[in-house]
Amino acid sequence: MIIVVLHNLIRISINQFRDINTHLSSAEGLCFSDGRRKVDYVLVFHQRRHGSIRSPASTSVSHDRLSIVSNGNFPPSVGPDVEAERGGGVQGEAANAGEVFMELGCSGGNETTEPADHEMRLIRQEFEANLLEAGLEIERNNEVSLKTHGPCFTRLHAPWPVLCREAEFLKIKVPTKTVRYHLFWFSVHVQRLFVSPFQPKVPHQDHERTKFLSHCFSRDKIHLYNITSKDTFFDNATRGRIVYEILRRTVCVRTCQTIGISTLIANGVYDSAFPLHDVSVPTRRPLVLHEEWARYSAFYKYQPIDLVRKYFGEKIGLYFAWLGVYTQLLVPASIVGIIVFGYGVATVDTNIPSQEMCDESLNFTMCPLCDGACDFWRLSTACGTARASHLFDNPATVFFAIFMSLWAVLFLEHWKRRQISLSFSWDLTGIEEDEEHPRPKYETILLQKRQRKQKNKKKKKKNEVGKLRNLCLAVIEKLTWKDRLPGYFINVSSILFMFGLTFSAVFGVIVYRITVSALMAMSPDPETKSNVRVTVTATAVIINLVVILILDEIYGAVALWLTELEIPKTETNFEERLILKAFLLKFMNAYAPIFYVAFFKGRFAGRPGNYVYVFNDFRMEECAPGGCLIELCIQLSIIMLGKQLIQNNIFEIGIPKLKKLVRAIKDKGSAEEEREEERPPQQWNLDYALAPFEGLTPEYMEMIIQFGFVSLFVASFPLAPLFALLNNVIEIRLDAKKFVTELRRPVAIRAKDIGIWYNILSGMGKFSVIINAFVISFTSDFIPRLVYQYMFSQTGTMHGFIDHTLSYFNVSNFKPGTAPQNSELGDITFCSRYKDYREPPWAPDAYTFSKQYWCVLAARLAFVILFQNLVMFLSLVVAWVIPDVPKTIVEQLKREKKLLVDVFLREEKEKFQLIQNCALLYSWRAVSCIKEPSGVTQPLPAMSEVFRYQETLLLLLPLY
Amino acid sequence: MIIVVLHNLIRISINQFRDINTHLSSAEGLCFSDGRRKVDYVLVFHQRRHGSIRSPASTSVSHDRLSIVSNGNFPPSVGPDVEAERGGGVQGEAANAGEVFMELGCSGGNETTEPADHEMRLIRQEFEANLLEAGLEIERNNEVSLKTHGPCFTRLHAPWPVLCREAEFLKIKVPTKTVRYHLFWFSVHVQRLFVSPFQPKVPHQDHERTKFLSHCFSRDKIHLYNITSKDTFFDNATRGRIVYEILRRTVCVRTCQTIGISTLIANGVYDSAFPLHDVSVPTRRPLVLHEEWARYSAFYKYQPIDLVRKYFGEKIGLYFAWLGVYTQLLVPASIVGIIVFGYGVATVDTNIPSQEMCDESLNFTMCPLCDGACDFWRLSTACGTARASHLFDNPATVFFAIFMSLWAVLFLEHWKRRQISLSFSWDLTGIEEDEEHPRPKYETILLQKRQRKQKNKKKKKKNEVGKLRNLCLAVIEKLTWKDRLPGYFINVSSILFMFGLTFSAVFGVIVYRITVSALMAMSPDPETKSNVRVTVTATAVIINLVVILILDEIYGAVALWLTELEIPKTETNFEERLILKAFLLKFMNAYAPIFYVAFFKGRFAGRPGNYVYVFNDFRMEECAPGGCLIELCIQLSIIMLGKQLIQNNIFEIGIPKLKKLVRAIKDKGSAEEEREEERPPQQWNLDYALAPFEGLTPEYMEMIIQFGFVSLFVASFPLAPLFALLNNVIEIRLDAKKFVTELRRPVAIRAKDIGIWYNILSGMGKFSVIINAFVISFTSDFIPRLVYQYMFSQTGTMHGFIDHTLSYFNVSNFKPGTAPQNSELGDITFCSRYKDYREPPWAPDAYTFSKQYWCVLAARLAFVILFQNLVMFLSLVVAWVIPDVPKTIVEQLKREKKLLVDVFLREEKEKFQLIQNCALLYSWRAVSCIKEPSGVTQPLPAMSEVFRYQETLLLLLPLY
Repeated sequence: MIIVVLHNLIRISINQFRDINTHLSSAEGLCFSDGRRKVDYVLVFHQRRHGSIRSPASTSVSHDRLSIVSNGNFPPSVGPDVEAERGGGVQGEAANAGEVFMELGCSGGNETTEPADHEMRLIRQEFEANLLEAGLEIERNNEVSLKTHGPCFTRLHAPWPVLCREAEFLKIKVPTKTVRYHLFWFSVHVQRLFVSPFQPKVPHQDHERTKFLSHCFSRDKIHLYNITSKDTFFDNATRGRIVYEILRRTVCVRTCQTIGISTLIANGVYDSAFPLHDVSVPTRRPLVLHEEWARYSAFYKYQPIDLVRKYFGEKIGLYFAWLGVYTQLLVPASIVGIIVFGYGVATVDTNIPSQEMCDESLNFTMCPLCDGACDFWRLSTACGTARASHLFDNPATVFFAIFMSLWAVLFLEHWKRRQISLSFSWDLTGIEEDEEHPRPKYETILLQKRQRKQKNKKKKKKNEVGKLRNLCLAVIEKLTWKDRLPGYFINVSSILFMFGLTFSAVFGVIVYRITVSALMAMSPDPETKSNVRVTVTATAVIINLVVILILDEIYGAVALWLTELEIPKTETNFEERLILKAFLLKFMNAYAPIFYVAFFKGRFAGRPGNYVYVFNDFRMEECAPGGCLIELCIQLSIIMLGKQLIQNNIFEIGIPKLKKLVRAIKDKGSAEEEREEERPPQQWNLDYALAPFEGLTPEYMEMIIQFGFVSLFVASFPLAPLFALLNNVIEIRLDAKKFVTELRRPVAIRAKDIGIWYNILSGMGKFSVIINAFVISFTSDFIPRLVYQYMFSQTGTMHGFIDHTLSYFNVSNFKPGTAPQNSELGDITFCSRYKDYREPPWAPDAYTFSKQYWCVLAARLAFVILFQNLVMFLSLVVAWVIPDVPKTIVEQLKREKKLLVDVFLREEKEKFQLIQNCALLYSWRAVSCIKEPSGVTQPLPAMSEVFRYQETLLLLLPLY
Repeated sequence: MIIVVLHNLIRISINQFRDINTHLSSAEGLCFSDGRRKVDYVLVFHQRRHGSIRSPASTSVSHDRLSIVSNGNFPPSVGPDVEAERGGGVQGEAANAGEVFMELGCSGGNETTEPADHEMRLIRQEFEANLLEAGLEIERNNEVSLKTHGPCFTRLHAPWPVLCREAEFLKIKVPTKTVRYHLFWFSVHVQRLFVSPFQPKVPHQDHERTKFLSHCFSRDKIHLYNITSKDTFFDNATRGRIVYEILRRTVCVRTCQTIGISTLIANGVYDSAFPLHDVSVPTRRPLVLHEEWARYSAFYKYQPIDLVRKYFGEKIGLYFAWLGVYTQLLVPASIVGIIVFGYGVATVDTNIPSQEMCDESLNFTMCPLCDGACDFWRLSTACGTARASHLFDNPATVFFAIFMSLWAVLFLEHWKRRQISLSFSWDLTGIEEDEEHPRPKYETILLQKRQRKQKNKKKKKKNEVGKLRNLCLAVIEKLTWKDRLPGYFINVSSILFMFGLTFSAVFGVIVYRITVSALMAMSPDPETKSNVRVTVTATAVIINLVVILILDEIYGAVALWLTELEIPKTETNFEERLILKAFLLKFMNAYAPIFYVAFFKGRFAGRPGNYVYVFNDFRMEECAPGGCLIELCIQLSIIMLGKQLIQNNIFEIGIPKLKKLVRAIKDKGSAEEEREEERPPQQWNLDYALAPFEGLTPEYMEMIIQFGFVSLFVASFPLAPLFALLNNVIEIRLDAKKFVTELRRPVAIRAKDIGIWYNILSGMGKFSVIINAFVISFTSDFIPRLVYQYMFSQTGTMHGFIDHTLSYFNVSNFKPGTAPQNSELGDITFCSRYKDYREPPWAPDAYTFSKQYWCVLAARLAFVILFQNLVMFLSLVVAWVIPDVPKTIVEQLKREKKLLVDVFLREEKEKFQLIQNCALLYSWRAVSCIKEPSGVTQPLPAMSEVFRYQETLLLLLPLY
């Protein structure tokens, strides 16, 4: 199955590769029309169609006016429009010039558009004027407006002074000039031998061993930095980030009282805003990413994480680094898992309990599996499941469960170290959290609240009572819990409802299983009868899977809706709450059926003669004769594999393709009329055609749920790590392709760590210890076997174990009508058997739990305590022994600090000397000015030089 | 008992108070002889007596020479000696002057002292010369040298420029001038009403609500700081710290190749070094501390933590703050504990099991408690213990155990928040760890290693083989694990040996109990017989207590020795390792007997007819009929109370007093000869007479062990928090008195948190959950009672519980010779009873564990799992709900950052304007110089002004 999927994926990937090749060759528009200024950001808004329908006259006017400047070549002097635009852009200060240019935008006639449209146009005008004021340069490609509808692109360029100013403001760390030093992470020779075949072929690969000393950018230390070209000193990701920062804080006061592009997008003023992908041939960076990272054929290689970070920013870099660490650590887990499974396969023939199960000579006559219709049956017919069950239920599994619990701890510890190493080599140490603006929704609600309060205030002012109190009320700075109360209420009730939904889905499947198997058992067809269990189990699991997949999507949407209701203040806050809720719901959804099979199935079935019934007619289901573990294993493997395959294939590849197709068809239909004017699409057209980036939450969520499969029930399914590994090897490249070729480029966001996901992982690791303890002791037969061997067995071996686990039942004790109607096994009157520890019919307290039952129960519970505390203790030891910060990093940080201080001290000395020389020069001139009375103006330029230096010095202060 | 102790303590305290009053009135020497320069630090070395014996001539010479300068008044021109000294001191640069002065030190004749003494004198000379070079000023009081032996004091003073330089270097935060703002911790009104009666009366109490914005000291921002007087701007603690910093890094290269005062003290060059206590009348600070803090009568008040921190530094401040938080939180715990205990008292008469125990009509005949000599006995005779046991073993205890586990979590969370609040108000946010020098021991070993390697190198050089390898070996930067291997080996084996020692001590007490009770039971005296249990238990617990106290002291010393063997590099490292080891040993020591009683006692006793014997003769001990819980309770309370009382009274008060007394007697004997010259002792004499400060480890350790009593076994002894509270209320004041009046003033050390103690506390909290779960389920009768009520009771009540817990025994099954020799209860032939769940003699498998046994066992284990996971989950929730950093602090930090930036920006603007004015002035002069050709030299001074400003600006840079 895996192979089919792989093949499928590779085929898709090849198609995509073809896509991007055509994409690359046709993409030219990475610069403004002058061919020099980079496009750092693109704002898109949609031109409404109705405007053109209502006033064809104005459209034609705009057509005429704008066709002049839209020929794509932009001769040096095209017209006053372009002149104004360029002037405003380059000087970056002439807001009025910008506004003049705004008047001639691509929006067509001013007077004829709808009021809403008109308002939006005004907002856009003001916003873009403010951007110009902030120093950005703006270009619009007016060709699109020919169509009178469709996307309109505003390209932004940040010139060098703006970049410098913002880099200083954002404390962006940049490499300094000369000081590089050797990182002694591990010996170069070892690396060359063992690691290099797995290293991606990335230019400047030595950056892993030498490192430029980096430092927060500061305009007056510019001579310290390694600036080769002002155009490339800040890479495109940083440029994008800088422009985004400006967009984020630029205000629109006159027209709509909002801050930042995100509010404008939320209000529909703009359609979207994104930086462009780097696809130009000279830098070749995305090509490297594409060749060495976003390909399935590179699956065995390390990821070029530094490049990924450079291109997509730290947050996405950390995701891929995390995914890489996880996948890497799955390798040893899979190997051990395979060995454990192999042990099960090797010992299946020598295992006494399964031999006894299959031994027909022992001749256990079992109680019927359903009332009336079913017959007594021989235990030896369940031989197959018993043997299969041994594959997963053997002593090696206990070892594996402990191993995997420690593995989870090790994984987290290793990740912590890796994260710190990365934040060191990415110069994230010491960065502070950025101050965040409130979300647009929050501000709206706050505004509403203020207005309400002011109304109240006015009312009260009329009464002229309690002036003082009103004054207090007037200053509302934030929303309190009272404002959020309805949101919380809906939240709690919805989540409870969702839980109910999940449980009823699980219960529905149970009812399905019970009824269908009862009906099938009653059918006269022997063929049907013999396949009852297989058919029912298979169909039920598939139904489960489908329900899970559907609910998964629903819950994602519900979580988003519920989080909006809570009105979180900042984006970080929002994300955190969303993640928690989504995780809770999706976790419940994915694991509820598995929990049922592991811990509840078969425990409420009652006993022969006293069965438990649902709906008065149907007996509760029991486990297979081989134990519930094999069913758990089937359930787990099908849900895990099915979820991964379907989500990867359909949700991550299929649906985006479909969407693209739909969009393409739509565009085709609408664009047909203007077919004749088609030219090769610009980069921003291509990027706009891609899907927008919607955050890393779904990617993380998928992996975390998978981590649950790997850690939570690993005791019952030792091959889980292997399947996870295979999936992840594909997943990395799939995600990589998605980011490189199918999504608009996200803004590079700084992040120190993976945030709340770490806590979720760590919580899951802890939970897994308990779950595995229970699975081993309650779901598997490990404990009963141990107890039998050391307490009840006469010989000290496992012989007689099966007999020991089966209780006796007197057929005469069947309730009327529930005994088998006609038995093929002859007339069985006494001592039919069933799997339970109960007193035999001849004991004084017949059918109550026997001493063995309590004894085994005590042993099971003791094992849980022992296992849990042992593993928790070992985890603590592991976490304590492995220091969070690698020693080398600690030493390097110290060294770096020292080096940096040295550099600055040296610089200062040089500066001081310079000033002294300067002063000498000046005093010499001052003296000389006396000798030559004619040179009155001569000393002054030297003085101004001194002062320029002083200004530089003063600029050093903001650094602090 | 408590009252007696309290009285005792108060009496002692009154004496001490009298002490300090005389102390205060007589202390004058806080300054140099000029009465202005503060003594910031005192170095003491001991003059050997033999010098004077061997060469009386030279002594008399020194006597003559030095008597001139030792009259205490120091007339302006006394002689060349004092002149030289003062000159060297004030100028702080004339190292040669210092050396000249050294020649005339108090050490008597140069030539006649012993070689070692001579060498030390040279080292001292070089060291003090280097101190002079570092800018410190030195004074020696030569009067002591009259005695030719005894302590010799070198006083150090740090002048203003040195203080400034070092404060800048150490990044000491100081308050800035004007910017203060209001802290909105809680409403002023609420505070005035409820909190103020408990507030200590401290001047400037408004510092809690307003706060000067503080900033790292920098010499060129001096105008920003709130400097009223250069003498008092840095408080004495800071001055001491600064001088200590200089002492720490001053080298002695010529004479002995070491760094810092600690090495010199370790080598015996100096005897000790300490800053002086502040006791002068004008500042009155220690008096406030003494009045409002270090008095038992202030026990109900909050501690003036800010003053404590100002006086003793952050590390000690944090200790007292932690102790305060702990004590404060013990209040609710004690209240709940009393309520739980009250519930036990109230229900003891209505409790059915204890009623049944006391009901003589039920007439249970119990099996004898020892072989042969003991008789059968009636259960009703154990009525007393049964009733007592109910006081501690009732359902409320379970609630209390859960409560206390959550309390522990809450305590830790609360402390985290408090710590962050403190580090905010003490301006510790953002301070970095100081780079630490290696310990003297480490350096010595490293030196030895280097020398060894060099020898090897030389040997190999002769062979001229492997030159390259030798080059690598030559640079040894640190000790590796190989050097430490023997240390580790001794460590592990010693710790194992200590564990063995602890266990054998416990076992010894067990053997004592078994043998003595057997012997006493055999004695013919009925009086003795009836008191067996009481006598044996009481004596055994007291023996245990004594053993614990003795081993505690031994283990403290052993831990120190073992840590020295490990050769840790830095002092922090050393402390951490020492604490871990000492904690492990002391914890084992204090809790081993308690663990034995809680979990092992009575579980290996066997059953009638098949007892377990030690040494072939003595039966293993059983629990009392009321259950082991009452014994656990007795053990716990006696060890806890005894340990606290004895350690507080004897170790913390008695022994220091004794030491002082011994020293006083010694001094008296030796000082008698020079009696006539006695003058009021100087402050340094008084301080030198105090005990040296030896770190906070013992104080913390005592509290942590107590925390164990409060948390670990709290399920069996709900009054533990109350006793801990009473103890701590005294402990705070006791420690305070010790620090203020009995110890030399410690150097103020910066610390952000309480370090490893937090981890130990948190680990203990986790451990306590498991321990309490086991105590409730296994030691108490809670679970058997529940099981009986809901599973076995016919009526659903507790009636018949006692009967249910007792098994039957057939007297004829006694082994020969073990049956009672003559029974007073008549001829009992059948069915004697014993406490256990076993099959009756008439069952087919007589005397094996019954179904009830397994059932109860399963219930016990299930309870452990439930309890542990429930409490762990609740703890996680509590820790998650309470944010680590209080919201107000987060907001204030943001605000403070903004304010600070504003202040600096304003400052810069002003400076810039100043420079511009200056430049204008200058250019005006430059122009005017042309008009007046005679004024050639006029423009230059203005220029130099500009340059002075530039220098200031350049000095801003190190800030960065």
